Amino acid sequence: MESHLLSNERFVSRLRQVGEERYHDKHPYHIAMHEGKLSPVQLRAWIANRFYYQKNIPVKDALILSKLPSREERREWIQRIIDHDGRDGEEGGIEAWVRLGEAAGIPREEMLDERHVLPAVRFAVDAYVNFCRLQPWPIAVASSLTELFAPTLVSKRIGVFLQLYSWILPEGLAYFQARLHQAPRDAEHGLSLVLRECRNREDQEQALSALRFKCDVLWALLDALSLAYPDGDNER
Amino acid sequence: MESHLLSNERFVSRLRQVGEERYHDKHPYHIAMHEGKLSPVQLRAWIANRFYYQKNIPVKDALILSKLPSREERREWIQRIIDHDGRDGEEGGIEAWVRLGEAAGIPREEMLDERHVLPAVRFAVDAYVNFCRLQPWPIAVASSLTELFAPTLVSKRIGVFLQLYSWILPEGLAYFQARLHQAPRDAEHGLSLVLRECRNREDQEQALSALRFKCDVLWALLDALSLAYPDGDNER
Repeated sequence: MESHLLSNERFVSRLRQVGEERYHDKHPYHIAMHEGKLSPVQLRAWIANRFYYQKNIPVKDALILSKLPSREERREWIQRIIDHDGRDGEEGGIEAWVRLGEAAGIPREEMLDERHVLPAVRFAVDAYVNFCRLQPWPIAVASSLTELFAPTLVSKRIGVFLQLYSWILPEGLAYFQARLHQAPRDAEHGLSLVLRECRNREDQEQALSALRFKCDVLWALLDALSLAYPDGDNER
Repeated sequence: MESHLLSNERFVSRLRQVGEERYHDKHPYHIAMHEGKLSPVQLRAWIANRFYYQKNIPVKDALILSKLPSREERREWIQRIIDHDGRDGEEGGIEAWVRLGEAAGIPREEMLDERHVLPAVRFAVDAYVNFCRLQPWPIAVASSLTELFAPTLVSKRIGVFLQLYSWILPEGLAYFQARLHQAPRDAEHGLSLVLRECRNREDQEQALSALRFKCDVLWALLDALSLAYPDGDNER
């Protein structure tokens, strides 16, 4: 049982199935967000907590970078770090997320000093960074494949923010707009590495497990927010 | 004793003193190289073994990158990785070192498959990478400060290779030429981080110790070469 290598087609289908079952777009907090039902307090809490995830992306990507076997792979992967940290003339995703916070009325200082970050959010994100630090690189890369599911979600989210949360200034949405082209490119590269490196069924199952783990990380962020910012308690 | 903070001037002078005492330009194998006394076999052995160090530079830099506390610092540090791995239209230092090998008559394949890499060279370089993996980032950065001593050496080396080893094709020297402007910039950035982060004498002594450690790594490479490729035994 479960010993034969899955074809690429079947393996990709299993990866996508993980997203269908566990990606955080199914979480009640996320559903409420996309239905326009979050209060300003709840949406600001999401932005400020999710920022802790955003700011750790280049950290986990540098850890993966340090393990990739050749400069060819590093040369592609390093673009993820540049996308988030920015470079001269291009501020990058972390700064764009701070500006999303500002557009939603969260002072920059409050984003940067992490005062709104919930302990369970910190634990989940730190677990993700440590996973990338400690696992073999193809498994760490597999955990990044939530990017397979991101573009559809992000393109919906831009519309949602513009229409249902019009109190957020539209210039705050630059992060999401950039991800529309970055995420598919990242997903394609990550997927090609995972397909190449998973040479037996055990590798493939580990990659699937890594992707489930990553979905659990994103889910845990929303669980923490649901508990701390329940409906009908918008003054906290 | 040894409890007061050194002034920046005195601290930098102590760092430079480490170089004066221990930098590998004092090693007999290195002295012989710069006096034109290495045989082709000995010089090729240096190039092929030193390549193991070169190819690990972006690995240790990615590990340091993963620990730097902010995107501002990462944005500067990431340039080191790009310098070695290259990017579109710019092949970078690792490829330049392979071409140095080719210019000296070492087939590319023999550089890449590590067949010439001596065990003690591997141990020393791996120790350096692990030092950067495990130490606090300011100490890891301090270990990179051999770059303070490199530009003088490298500019001499270009002349030495052109004049004393004219059997090496001059187009092989592009790596050294690039380092003439990269190393001073890297040294300045690294030094500014070390000066900023070493806030008490204990930090300063640890930074000095890290720099001594790094000098020992470079020295160990040449020790290994001296043992494996002694004078008068050029047919090995």
